[in-house]
Amino acid sequence: MSSDLILYSYWRSSAAFRVRIALNLKGLRYETRAVHLVRDGGEQHALPYAALNPQELVPTLLDGERVITQSMAMLEYLDETRPQPPLLPADAAGRARVRALSQAVACDIHPIGNLRVLQRLGAQFDADDEQKALWMRHWVASGFHALETMLAGSAQTGRYCHGDVPGMADACLVPQVYNARRWNVPLEDYPTLLRIDAACAELDAFREALPERQPDAPSNR
Amino acid sequence: MSSDLILYSYWRSSAAFRVRIALNLKGLRYETRAVHLVRDGGEQHALPYAALNPQELVPTLLDGERVITQSMAMLEYLDETRPQPPLLPADAAGRARVRALSQAVACDIHPIGNLRVLQRLGAQFDADDEQKALWMRHWVASGFHALETMLAGSAQTGRYCHGDVPGMADACLVPQVYNARRWNVPLEDYPTLLRIDAACAELDAFREALPERQPDAPSNR
Repeated sequence: MSSDLILYSYWRSSAAFRVRIALNLKGLRYETRAVHLVRDGGEQHALPYAALNPQELVPTLLDGERVITQSMAMLEYLDETRPQPPLLPADAAGRARVRALSQAVACDIHPIGNLRVLQRLGAQFDADDEQKALWMRHWVASGFHALETMLAGSAQTGRYCHGDVPGMADACLVPQVYNARRWNVPLEDYPTLLRIDAACAELDAFREALPERQPDAPSNR
Repeated sequence: MSSDLILYSYWRSSAAFRVRIALNLKGLRYETRAVHLVRDGGEQHALPYAALNPQELVPTLLDGERVITQSMAMLEYLDETRPQPPLLPADAAGRARVRALSQAVACDIHPIGNLRVLQRLGAQFDADDEQKALWMRHWVASGFHALETMLAGSAQTGRYCHGDVPGMADACLVPQVYNARRWNVPLEDYPTLLRIDAACAELDAFREALPERQPDAPSNR
């Protein structure tokens, strides 16, 4: 079954990075199909990809005939169809905690600093690179401050975001920390986030999902 | 059990509106505690609320001793702890479709037009009300265009977003349509969204969740 998994991905997309981590954590083999978000005005806006994903965003996951959009829906889908090892804990309260940590990134940090939002800041407000970086740093700092409080203040935080097993929240956090470094966001105020990020960096599932390891990364082409 | 549910809410918050719909669809009684997002610089930024929700966002759900943040985590939690009637279909592919439709709103429309983002556009780019409205209309139009394609093009769309039973995707769509009307977004290009919104408007669960029906709405105070 897993040999039919195809991920439409862009090496530097945080959302695709999340799904790569989840696929790797579950030991699933998949084929990467690159969608270049910048070249030629963005391949995500052109057919045939735009027919698969009407939002014209990456990633898109194919499981045989099934077409799945939205990275967080993919993580839930993979956990339902390939339950071992799980991305979510077994208890409802723990699942709610992990989903809330995940969504603090996936709803409240990442979409506001997405490529298309930065492009829109340029088009509507004539924002230059420095102003875009200021925007990014504001939202990452605000989100990371909250996440640090949520993680440092909870006995349920372990080596990873929830206990000592990596899962959904880690798959969301690590790409956002990677992205923050790219934008030179100061990170010294978030020791728990950095500790968890470092623990994840020791795992092959996270290392092999890194942007620079992807077949469409500039260094690999 | 359900008598212990407390929702920290703001009448006009789309995310709180979603959770009110879900609670109503399940027939759960809950206590509303109002958090005023604007008065005194925003009660969400002050104690005691900010200790419950380190992101300083509404809503927050209390289930007895359990504190749950993030509206989409609340919907999943309610569906796991009070399964009937379900907010998600039973099959993994259907669940992925409903989650993707939901997240197309909850990740890719709503957070980009949130109050705090509009405030930031004012602070960083000196955006006035007209520019904020233009920003809102851009993101709602882009998201609704994709949702219209996803819904109109699928045989799984029924009276509601997924078949003939209202659920999670409807609980996300209806507050976003309400919000679009508030910002005077032209909606004539989205006939399927409008049809589903009208079908939902016939249901008490949606009507009773409307912002103007909430105890903290200005007309009720």
